[in-house]
Amino acid sequence: MSPTPRVRLGMVGGGEGAFIGQVHRLAANLDGHFELVCGAFSRDADNNARTGAACGVAASRLYADWQSLLNAERALPADQRMQLLVIVTPNHLHVPIADAALAAGFHVFCEKPAALSLDEARGLDATWREHGGLYGLAHTYLGYPMVWQARAMVAAGTLGRLRKIHVEYPQGWLGETLETQGNKQAGWRTDPAQAGPSGCMADIGTHAFGLAEFVSGQRVASLCASLGSHVDGRRLDDDGDVLLRTAEGASGTLIASQVSTGEENALKLRLYGEDGALEWHQMEPNSLIHRSRGAPMRVLRGGIDQPELVDAVMARLRLPGGHPEGYLEALGNLYRDTASAIRRGDRGDIAGVPGMASGLRGMAFIEAVTQSQAGGSRWTDLPSTD
Amino acid sequence: MSPTPRVRLGMVGGGEGAFIGQVHRLAANLDGHFELVCGAFSRDADNNARTGAACGVAASRLYADWQSLLNAERALPADQRMQLLVIVTPNHLHVPIADAALAAGFHVFCEKPAALSLDEARGLDATWREHGGLYGLAHTYLGYPMVWQARAMVAAGTLGRLRKIHVEYPQGWLGETLETQGNKQAGWRTDPAQAGPSGCMADIGTHAFGLAEFVSGQRVASLCASLGSHVDGRRLDDDGDVLLRTAEGASGTLIASQVSTGEENALKLRLYGEDGALEWHQMEPNSLIHRSRGAPMRVLRGGIDQPELVDAVMARLRLPGGHPEGYLEALGNLYRDTASAIRRGDRGDIAGVPGMASGLRGMAFIEAVTQSQAGGSRWTDLPSTD
Amino acid sequence: MSPTPRVRLGMVGGGEGAFIGQVHRLAANLDGHFELVCGAFSRDADNNARTGAACGVAASRLYADWQSLLNAERALPADQRMQLLVIVTPNHLHVPIADAALAAGFHVFCEKPAALSLDEARGLDATWREHGGLYGLAHTYLGYPMVWQARAMVAAGTLGRLRKIHVEYPQGWLGETLETQGNKQAGWRTDPAQAGPSGCMADIGTHAFGLAEFVSGQRVASLCASLGSHVDGRRLDDDGDVLLRTAEGASGTLIASQVSTGEENALKLRLYGEDGALEWHQMEPNSLIHRSRGAPMRVLRGGIDQPELVDAVMARLRLPGGHPEGYLEALGNLYRDTASAIRRGDRGDIAGVPGMASGLRGMAFIEAVTQSQAGGSRWTDLPSTD
Amino acid sequence: MSPTPRVRLGMVGGGEGAFIGQVHRLAANLDGHFELVCGAFSRDADNNARTGAACGVAASRLYADWQSLLNAERALPADQRMQLLVIVTPNHLHVPIADAALAAGFHVFCEKPAALSLDEARGLDATWREHGGLYGLAHTYLGYPMVWQARAMVAAGTLGRLRKIHVEYPQGWLGETLETQGNKQAGWRTDPAQAGPSGCMADIGTHAFGLAEFVSGQRVASLCASLGSHVDGRRLDDDGDVLLRTAEGASGTLIASQVSTGEENALKLRLYGEDGALEWHQMEPNSLIHRSRGAPMRVLRGGIDQPELVDAVMARLRLPGGHPEGYLEALGNLYRDTASAIRRGDRGDIAGVPGMASGLRGMAFIEAVTQSQAGGSRWTDLPSTD
Repeated sequence: MSPTPRVRLGMVGGGEGAFIGQVHRLAANLDGHFELVCGAFSRDADNNARTGAACGVAASRLYADWQSLLNAERALPADQRMQLLVIVTPNHLHVPIADAALAAGFHVFCEKPAALSLDEARGLDATWREHGGLYGLAHTYLGYPMVWQARAMVAAGTLGRLRKIHVEYPQGWLGETLETQGNKQAGWRTDPAQAGPSGCMADIGTHAFGLAEFVSGQRVASLCASLGSHVDGRRLDDDGDVLLRTAEGASGTLIASQVSTGEENALKLRLYGEDGALEWHQMEPNSLIHRSRGAPMRVLRGGIDQPELVDAVMARLRLPGGHPEGYLEALGNLYRDTASAIRRGDRGDIAGVPGMASGLRGMAFIEAVTQSQAGGSRWTDLPSTD
Repeated sequence: MSPTPRVRLGMVGGGEGAFIGQVHRLAANLDGHFELVCGAFSRDADNNARTGAACGVAASRLYADWQSLLNAERALPADQRMQLLVIVTPNHLHVPIADAALAAGFHVFCEKPAALSLDEARGLDATWREHGGLYGLAHTYLGYPMVWQARAMVAAGTLGRLRKIHVEYPQGWLGETLETQGNKQAGWRTDPAQAGPSGCMADIGTHAFGLAEFVSGQRVASLCASLGSHVDGRRLDDDGDVLLRTAEGASGTLIASQVSTGEENALKLRLYGEDGALEWHQMEPNSLIHRSRGAPMRVLRGGIDQPELVDAVMARLRLPGGHPEGYLEALGNLYRDTASAIRRGDRGDIAGVPGMASGLRGMAFIEAVTQSQAGGSRWTDLPSTD
Repeated sequence: MSPTPRVRLGMVGGGEGAFIGQVHRLAANLDGHFELVCGAFSRDADNNARTGAACGVAASRLYADWQSLLNAERALPADQRMQLLVIVTPNHLHVPIADAALAAGFHVFCEKPAALSLDEARGLDATWREHGGLYGLAHTYLGYPMVWQARAMVAAGTLGRLRKIHVEYPQGWLGETLETQGNKQAGWRTDPAQAGPSGCMADIGTHAFGLAEFVSGQRVASLCASLGSHVDGRRLDDDGDVLLRTAEGASGTLIASQVSTGEENALKLRLYGEDGALEWHQMEPNSLIHRSRGAPMRVLRGGIDQPELVDAVMARLRLPGGHPEGYLEALGNLYRDTASAIRRGDRGDIAGVPGMASGLRGMAFIEAVTQSQAGGSRWTDLPSTD
Repeated sequence: MSPTPRVRLGMVGGGEGAFIGQVHRLAANLDGHFELVCGAFSRDADNNARTGAACGVAASRLYADWQSLLNAERALPADQRMQLLVIVTPNHLHVPIADAALAAGFHVFCEKPAALSLDEARGLDATWREHGGLYGLAHTYLGYPMVWQARAMVAAGTLGRLRKIHVEYPQGWLGETLETQGNKQAGWRTDPAQAGPSGCMADIGTHAFGLAEFVSGQRVASLCASLGSHVDGRRLDDDGDVLLRTAEGASGTLIASQVSTGEENALKLRLYGEDGALEWHQMEPNSLIHRSRGAPMRVLRGGIDQPELVDAVMARLRLPGGHPEGYLEALGNLYRDTASAIRRGDRGDIAGVPGMASGLRGMAFIEAVTQSQAGGSRWTDLPSTD
């Protein structure tokens, strides 16, 4: 029996000092399915070299920019060249790089949001459909096992007809003007040229939106948004409250904020149906609260030995109950499913991983939110993404 | 030293089977400051008699209706007649009875909402100003000690400039069509003739609204409401989501729902300011969560031996830390303050107890909410209540 | 229909500055079944007068000491004289007063512990059996509704055969030498002459012990205790850890401490059986956690509309789910049951209220604990209380 | 800049179906510092082959048993041969394999307990001292960042003089007789020949004990244990309650149980000192509760952006606050520190990782516990491990 070869990974972005690149590397490492073989981690050559060395990437496969990376890797023999490109750059580069990578025959795993605009995302969608590479989007929260349990319970009708969707995502870290204090994360996220037309809504509102649609199985049809910017000189929204209505008749709220002082990363979803309700907190991700009419509240728990968990959950767990699995395991699940898809030779969508459809939905959300705000917080339909 | 005489209490409404009347009697009993001397508990004579006997009210002071009660009590010698009338009827009788009672020289403590409309409330306000009796409104949640602690901390600037207000009040009990199954509580609450133009927003939305304004010290200036009615044949809202903006520049959301399956009475307030944040849950009322920039989260606890509590809190506590005080103690605080005001001979407002101003604000809220909804969930200014 | 007359209450102890007396008065007030007609609240005449006046007791029925109270009240006409005597003095007076009151034909409701020693308790037991008055003991925690739910579930076999009992009661208030700083509560509790041979174990260990036996329905047969005294000059235990074994074969631990810095009143009980487990926290008394083999954890909630609650719980609730009921309501339940027993003309035990049997068990526990400690923390059988 | 080479890892045990081996591989993968180059995963050849292939180990370096592994690897060139051997076999093989590996010049990272007896551990200690290889013990819970924060706060005197230590570790999974139902984990853990003289105390009691000593910085001097075995035919303890006293004068309890129905893995530590207290729960490992005299409770949170965290904590965190890190990250921290020590060329102890001293203490604990139990639960001194 010969050992299973690792999937060869490349990365654009994620040099030292960029938080999210290291997170992706940790998550990709976890199950041992990937080998990082090349990168263009930073346009700063020293940073690029240091990051590559620290990650075990041969100097010969460290590239000055993403164009060089694609060109050089394409020229390598099939059994050596990168298979999957991870894109962890600021938002404005997501589409140019993903588009070129897909066109060059690589698979892509990209940070969210998929694009700066719905139009740009549609262009990428066309490339993806033409070339057929796999495309995954790092909606990490959809990698949490109990999120899948929630989705399965909703789909099975456990809640009955859905009435309410409340999703919120308060953070506090942008409560100060970090962008003028040299904070790299804050810098690009608050710069329209790099982040796109939305700040908070693009950065974390899309997570909340994607989670709500994923678990509910419903599509937001229209919304009314009230966005704000709370720090002097900030050019993009750092906070917003949104009323929602789905095509299927549910209603609710979406709150996303980066100026909620003292909050860490408190993504929370609640769904209420005629017969039951579910509540999930990202900061305690191994628990799923289930309420139902005429019965005491239950707390379903993640863990490979826990009752009532559906197969989709079991496949996303690594440990028995009571051994906390967290954020890296969730992102690791997306990577694990991506490795499986590559090994199977799948094309297009990565089973179990959010992809182009999620990207388009997220852009439709941002478009509707910014348009609603521009129109004085009026009700706005989400553009079609079909 | 002669014993302190009790304040003589009368009650309209609250016969057997009516939940809230018994709650008021328990709360009024707690500190021993009141004696229930008369009542028109029910228009059902048997119910009236049974309730009176159970409460120790002499048969001679049980009245067939509130008009008889007011007439008869007014005719009694000053040292015997009722001093404070408690009104625990369906909404549509609040103003007629309160108006007559104030005009007859009695003090009034009334269930919320104060009235069916802002206009009606303004009429009551005029009577109240003319006659000078005390008028208190049973916004019970403003009797909780830690709510006063929160208010004091906001007023002291602990949070810095306020950015966000999120208040929510999910219940689940009206998730079914109880109103057609003989449930008395559900019956009148869903009948526009008795409840007024709003169901859920009048019943519990006003609590959420009042709590938010009380603790924040700010006034909601405009709102955008999306109300819903989720049960076949229900004529009033049983759920709603509202976007808020205050005159002082804060924004946020108010959620009130009676169809959130499995929720009990989960009123929760969160305030975020530049420097800190507070979070309070009615279902765990002895705790107040305090977050601040650059420091770990703290949990302030109610209890007569707990540090950092301000005087207004200490005065509303009866027990040391760790001995839970609950809903009846909160309502008991409003009664205790009312007894003190009557004994001091105060006129008009009851120190420490929500009154006419709160009533007017609540009606302005209902008016704006229903108007916003009628206009297709558009932004609507709250009418002035000054 | 004539109004139900109130039960006439007298009180010994509980003058201004004594915490527990006021607590009893509040709890007795709650349901309106009692009228405080007489008292010997303090041997300080001014305090006695002030307390009586504040409580509405006629000056003529304020007595200088408990002997005068008993003599004078006995001489009053049957329809005027005190029916129930509440004893809220330091421990050493519990038996002398209770004994005399029972012998004089009064009913008694006494603070715990019942006595200073098992022998003294046995003497009281004999008087009680001879005279037949009602005798109740203020094990307040046995008045909490969810404690009765737990007991009912254990009795119904929900947990299967019981394996483990873990009960703990950490407080922190005696972490400093309060007794030499004029703190009245700390003073007598740390004085063997007034508190008896045990400090912490008598004061709160008996609560933990009583709760464990009540809910488990089992009897502790033997124990091994390690007591400590952590403050210079303190003469009684302020902390202790105990290993337990029941006659029925369960084992476990009892922790009671008054030097656990920062703890308020964190009484907690956990029972584990072959098929399930229960967990109850006094500081969140409206919830009861139920675990069972092969099923997710459930949280049963108190509330007159909550499913699965047994009749004994419903009878001890006053409010719907989500309206917190606390310590005063729990003690109020003991008072309410006492009023019912008096009105029915019951003799001996008060249905629903801990009484002489609990008192004897508590003293047996203290005796075994102090004896185990004296013998170098060796296993010691509890003396028989049958 | 040349890429940092990975540390070459070998593993004994951990074939398919053995839970803990896969856990070690995941944790070792996480930071990308290790490469699994060889293994004797199972004595079942097929299992061994499948496991090796799945882990990417070349068939040539899959060995039939640990002796073959050591012999063959020792014969390889220095730049190819295994550097660190991970031992994840049943307990009785820990010492034989570790001893041989250390003697053969390899570093060792071993599952706990270190040995079957204190004597056996002393023999291993001698080998280790003689040969100087690194030796680490998988006390995973000591890899959690907030455990280090707690230790640092105790060491800094934040709690003042320590009074109480309460540690508990309830699990429920052995509540049934799994060992006769073909459950591999249960099988060897309940077999004295493979597990040693203790079941539950060796398996998880040592974790609780190690955690208590690590955080408190104190040494348990004597204990009194009451062990039990709750399932028919089980030959080892599956549960136990222990009273503790430390050399420094603190006292407390240790509870470990595998028959606490419904509990997952609820390791919890509480320390009470004169000035403050700390509480940590393994199942919510990112929080550390801090109580102090005269101040509200605080919740310190793990996260690379969280205030007050000491350097030792920051070094063990990978993510910002609110991104949960769990069990695999904790074990990953032990692996990361081991990689660093190997790369630095350290000898003997692995900085930041529990080692031989912890192993000896754990065995002393087991010895004292079993001796106390055998003597009828009498107080027993821990044997010296210096």
